This record gives sequence, structure tokens and C-alpha cells, in this order.
Amino acid sequence: MRKDRDMNKLVGNAVVGQSGGPTAAINATLAGVIRGVKDTNNHDGAIGKLYGMRNGVEGLIKENLIDLTERFANDGDIDILESTPAAALGSCRKKLPKPADDPEFFENLIAIFKKYDIRYFFYIGGNDSMDTVAKLSEYTKMCDYEMRIIGVPKTIDNDLVVTDHTPGFGSAAKYIATTMQEIIRDCAVYTTKAVTIVEIMGRDAGWLTASSAIGRVVNGVAPNLVYLPERKFSLEAFFEDVKKELEKQPNVVVAVSEGLQFEDGTYVGEGTQSGAVDIFGHKYLSGTGKALEMAVKNEIGCKVRSVELNISQRCAAHIASATDIDESVMVGKSAVRAAADGVTRAMMTILRADGEEYCSYIGSSDVSKIANQTKHVDDAFINERGNNVTDECCKYLLPLIAGERDIKYENGLPIHIIL
Amino acid sequence: MRKDRDMNKLVGNAVVGQSGGPTAAINATLAGVIRGVKDTNNHDGAIGKLYGMRNGVEGLIKENLIDLTERFANDGDIDILESTPAAALGSCRKKLPKPADDPEFFENLIAIFKKYDIRYFFYIGGNDSMDTVAKLSEYTKMCDYEMRIIGVPKTIDNDLVVTDHTPGFGSAAKYIATTMQEIIRDCAVYTTKAVTIVEIMGRDAGWLTASSAIGRVVNGVAPNLVYLPERKFSLEAFFEDVKKELEKQPNVVVAVSEGLQFEDGTYVGEGTQSGAVDIFGHKYLSGTGKALEMAVKNEIGCKVRSVELNISQRCAAHIASATDIDESVMVGKSAVRAAADGVTRAMMTILRADGEEYCSYIGSSDVSKIANQTKHVDDAFINERGNNVTDECCKYLLPLIAGERDIKYENGLPIHIIL
Repeated sequence: MRKDRDMNKLVGNAVVGQSGGPTAAINATLAGVIRGVKDTNNHDGAIGKLYGMRNGVEGLIKENLIDLTERFANDGDIDILESTPAAALGSCRKKLPKPADDPEFFENLIAIFKKYDIRYFFYIGGNDSMDTVAKLSEYTKMCDYEMRIIGVPKTIDNDLVVTDHTPGFGSAAKYIATTMQEIIRDCAVYTTKAVTIVEIMGRDAGWLTASSAIGRVVNGVAPNLVYLPERKFSLEAFFEDVKKELEKQPNVVVAVSEGLQFEDGTYVGEGTQSGAVDIFGHKYLSGTGKALEMAVKNEIGCKVRSVELNISQRCAAHIASATDIDESVMVGKSAVRAAADGVTRAMMTILRADGEEYCSYIGSSDVSKIANQTKHVDDAFINERGNNVTDECCKYLLPLIAGERDIKYENGLPIHIIL
Repeated sequence: MRKDRDMNKLVGNAVVGQSGGPTAAINATLAGVIRGVKDTNNHDGAIGKLYGMRNGVEGLIKENLIDLTERFANDGDIDILESTPAAALGSCRKKLPKPADDPEFFENLIAIFKKYDIRYFFYIGGNDSMDTVAKLSEYTKMCDYEMRIIGVPKTIDNDLVVTDHTPGFGSAAKYIATTMQEIIRDCAVYTTKAVTIVEIMGRDAGWLTASSAIGRVVNGVAPNLVYLPERKFSLEAFFEDVKKELEKQPNVVVAVSEGLQFEDGTYVGEGTQSGAVDIFGHKYLSGTGKALEMAVKNEIGCKVRSVELNISQRCAAHIASATDIDESVMVGKSAVRAAADGVTRAMMTILRADGEEYCSYIGSSDVSKIANQTKHVDDAFINERGNNVTDECCKYLLPLIAGERDIKYENGLPIHIIL
């Protein structure tokens, strides 16, 4: 038996993987796991080596593993990993089968765990990753292979329940809030009437789009209109809003979520699908911003353009939020500490302490409480007209973008770790 | 007569304006002019006050002026101005009439100059601004109103002749090169075949698109394919290139200039204009990236997406090149020094010294030598196949993105000056 005199002590190696879409902070959490394992090495010695699975469980099955203990012997490399965007171990979108449906799959996994003496499993990812954590927990318990299995959330969308916010969100929000400040400066230079529509990620929840308005409580600079997917979108109300704003100033800046839907549930961005074809004969799918650009051009006739912030929202590590990166490291580190202390079948969470001053701490929750739920932007955070967020919303988001990292550059470019 | 015992000394006030599209460095040049005037105040006292025209000559005509000497009494504010993107004074796209066609327009200007005792005129802008400098020089000479008139170039496109490179280009290039590093990390996380097409600004010249490849000579990370407008674009050759790259690695990243043209001169981005209409019944104009995304989807069938870097290329001051900002300040400062020393009807230039180590110095040139010419990317900087840039090109561009500014933040957002 692997247990020491200390009832909770489980001696063995650990494996960590990354899954789902990349963020600017998912490697910070990996760095936290590496730091956490180093700590236990020096502390109670429960965990030996840390392996990294390449491309998540896909790599694990193929024994495509990297010895992270060896690779990150140098702490300087861990610092750089914290500022490297996207999943350094590679990612996958694989959903595990149910143990009852494919026992062979799980038997193979257990054989690999035994071969490498792996007793700790850390998985950094989104909803699907938490599903992997749950299924693996179920199977290892069933077959009596003692293992500590912990999920660490990451998503720029900030739409997970239980946790106050998600690792990766603060950096995406900082990128969006900063870029919005710059776009508003850019738009302000001419005196001719113009509308600029900025499309922001977030299919189901409007947290990222809401972040575009944070500047309002810092320096008064924010988009004139902000539309979240939490409210059905009406083209008539939108035109009315834009016209009213154009009367107040020549330059109107509008933030829209990619997930805006009309009353009947169709996406605003689906508009141009219906019948439009390009020279190659394909149906054309525009984005929400582009569809609204065309709508404004037709209805109002002024100068109008759309800007899609696109994947920089999830990979602009050079403007990461120090708060987000610090918390992302901490959540990875805490996962290791919790596992060493006996926690399993859990997802780590970030909680916000009560009080005026922002203060967060790390917790953990039963992984099954998280799956398949979406945390929407609170009603109190959206104004009555549904065309902006409230100051309360901006103040809630503000601490999550606080602080800048000391990014290391070489010849003018940020230094990244490639594994 | 305004001349002192020193033959070249002309005593009077100065006015400065900004014109054309914004950049991340156009305010750095304004800051340079402000610093330059402060220097002459302390030095020979030739220049008194510095006025700023709001929205370029449009504001000058309406006497919409701001006393910059008073506004920037505090040097700390000038530092922040250097890191503020877009034209803080506002911009315009006004082209002056020919003096012979509209003498009244120029008489009004002279009356305003006399009213404010303005003897120095600094105009920061693109080709049209140099045209303004030329016409005003012509008229003031004709009517014997002694004045020193100097243009300071700015364009992210880097397509002006005579100057080695243009203020604003280095910061745009640094944003593009950095974002490309991050996008490539983002694209590398999955193992499924995917093509990512990144559309970069530059209608006529490919300097910005070329900048996306700079990483190759720093860390070996660069887009697999790079297409500049200097070469005609062939869809067949493009498909062949992409297929070949997909054999080598699952993730292929392609940088394309917005200005790509087919052999017959039509823009690649014009493709979807022909006949395609959206649900609102409008003709649809996609970008170059989107058009190629659809082409690849149809021809190759793998996962494909396009990313348009859009206006952040010209306003992402938070990742400005320190070299660019320093040079942009220096060129503004030098314009004032040159004018005080007797130079007029000139455009300031940045010249590159010979030698291994990068070293630049400021010069000036007859303004008429610049207008209506485009500096294309050198033949030697493009590979034979026309699907990438050479290492020589990357090495030429590399020093222009060197160094990072110490950006001041408040509550997680960069601090900008609003005038």
C-alpha cells in the first residue's frame, strides 16, 4: 500500500495536462502546478516527478509525456512559462467515454499510471476537462486504484458557476479594456459622424463584452453602447440608440458580443448566411459586428466600420493582468497542495472575500457542481434599456485587470517557452 | 522686420497640427515639437508660445487653437502624451486649395498668423500634409510673410521615399510581430490540420505584412507563408503553397496584405463584392483574409479561419516600439531646431547610418521630393517564389521594433492624455 504513516499521505508521481481553448493564463496555472510539486518535493515528499501530457489525454494514452521536473529545474524558465500564451503542453478537445461504455480505454490508462507510478492527476481546462476529472475519479474509485484527481478551470469567458471568476478571464478583460481605450482614442480624431462597432468574444455570457466598459469608472472613457447576449437584440432599438448617440457626439463606439441573438433566437451574425454567396459560390457567414456594420450603413448611412478583436483576446499575454496571472499560478499551486492533503474529484475555485478592498482566496468544490451550467452577467450589472452595463458591473470587474507583468523581451519580442 | 541681429533669427510664435490617419507615435512627435519649443525658449528665445490647431488646418481656419505651452507646462504630461495613441489634437483630411485658385483662403490664414504672431508652422502628417506644407510655403513666400514651415512625416505604412522609415511604423510593426508570436502559439495547441490567415494593413506597400515575419531571425517563430502586395497574387500558387506547408506541420499560419491583387489588378478582397448580398440586401465586401479563408475552405477543406488585425495596428500604444517613439520625439524636436535655424519648406526625415549596429539620425529634405511616390518593399527582401520575405528583410526591420516603453497605468489601464 502506498500510504505512509500519515493517513493522507499518498506517495507517487504526478501528471498534468491542458485541454480546451487556449488562454493567456493557462500556462501560468501549469507553472503553478510545477511550483506546487517543487514545494511538496521540499516539504513532505508525497509527490515525486511531474509529467506533462502532450495534447491532454490524447498524449497520455499514447504515453507522449514530458518530464516537467527535469525541464523546469531552472526557476527562470517557470517565470517565462507564466508569460507564455496558449497551452505549452498542447491541447485537445477529447471527451472521455463513459467507463461502462469503454472499460478497455480506462484499463489502458490505469496501466500507464502504474507504469509511471502516477498517483496525482491535474487537468487544466474547461467544462470537458471537468468531465474528464469526474469520469476518471469514478473509474479509479471503482477499480480501487488510489489517485488524487483535480481539475483546474480556465476560460476567458468567465462563465463557470461556483468560482467567482475564472483564470484567464482577467487577462482577456484587460486586453479588451485596454484595446477599447486605444480604439476610442483612434475614433476621436475626426469630426465627421462615424460609428465603430467592436465585436467581442463570449457566445453565451457577456462578461468579456462588459469588460470593454471598465474604463468608465477609471477615466470616464468607455464605449457609448454595450450589448450583451444576456438581452435579446432588437435592430429597431439599436438604430434608435445609435441615432441618439450620434446627436451627442460625432464618434459613436459600440461594443457587441459575438453571441447576440434576435428575439426569435437566431444569431445576429447568422444574418448573412441566408442566401448570400461569394465568388467561390459559398454561403457567407459574417460576424455579428460585420452584420451590424452593414445594418447601420443601410439605415443611417454614416461612415461605419466593424472591428473583430478575435483571438488576441485569448492570447495577448504581453498585456496580461498581473492579478489574473498571480491567481492562475496560485490556483495551480493550491491544486497540488490540496491533492497532497487528500483532496480529490474536485475543481479548484477562486473566491472573493467580502469587503471594500479586493481580496481573493482559493477554494475547491465538487467537480460535478460545475458542469453544464453557464454563469451569466447579473441582471443588476445591465442597465434597464439593455444597451450598457452599470457602474456596479465595471467596479466588480475592475480589480480583475489590475497590475501589469514584467514581461521579458528579446530583440523587441516577448520571450515564450516552447515545450 | 522680425529679424534680429542674428541673420537667421526669426522671432514669433509657433503652431502645430496633426493630419491624416492616427498612429501610435503621432503624439510622440507632437511631444517632440513641444519639447523643441521649450528648448528654444531656454536657448535663443526665437519661438515664444506654441499653439496647437484642433483637427489640423480645419481648426486653424476656425481659430480653434489650444495654448500648448500652458497645457504642457508640466513635463510629466509630455511623457504621457508620448504614450497616448492617435492624434491628441484631432486630425483632418483637408487638402488645401491651390493659392491661385482660392487666394481668399490664404489671406485668411495670413490674417490669423498675424493675429497670433505665428512665424513657425509644424505639420505632422502624411502625403496630404506635405502638400499643405508646400502650398503654404509657396503662398507665404509670394506675399512676403516670413515664415518657417516644416512637415513631419508619420505613417504606419512606411511607404514614403527619402526617409529610411517613417515615425509610427516601428510601433505598428512591433504590434504585428508580437501579435504574430502570440497567434502562432495559439495555433500550435491542436494537432488537427488548420490554416490561420492573418490580414495585415498596407494597401500599396508590404512593409507591415513583412514585419509579421521578424520573429524568424529572433527565435525562429514566424508565419509559414507571407504574401505582399509587391507581387501579383495567384490562387493556384497559393493553394499549392498551403498544401505543401500542411504536409510539413498541422498548423499553417499565413500573413497576407490587405492590398493583395490578382494578375488582372482586381483586389483579392473585392472577390465577394460580385453579386453577394446579405439579408439586408446589400452587396457584401469582405476583406482579403476572409476571401482567402473561404477559398481555402473550398479547395482544401481543412479547418480555416481568418484574423484581421484591424485598427489596433495603428493605435496599440501599450506595445509601442521604444525606438519608434524615441525617434518620433526626436524628429519633432529636430523640426523645431531646424526651423529656428532657418530651415523651411522641408520635410524631416530619419536616416540610417551605415554599419552593423543600428544607428539613426535626423535629416530634412525638400518637401516636394516626397509627394505622390510609394516606397515598396525591396526586391531583395522578397523570396523568389513570392511567398515569404527574406532573412535580410527581417534583419532590416528588426531594430525598428527594439525596446519597450515604460507605460504608466492607472487601475490596470494605460493613462492617456485627452486635450
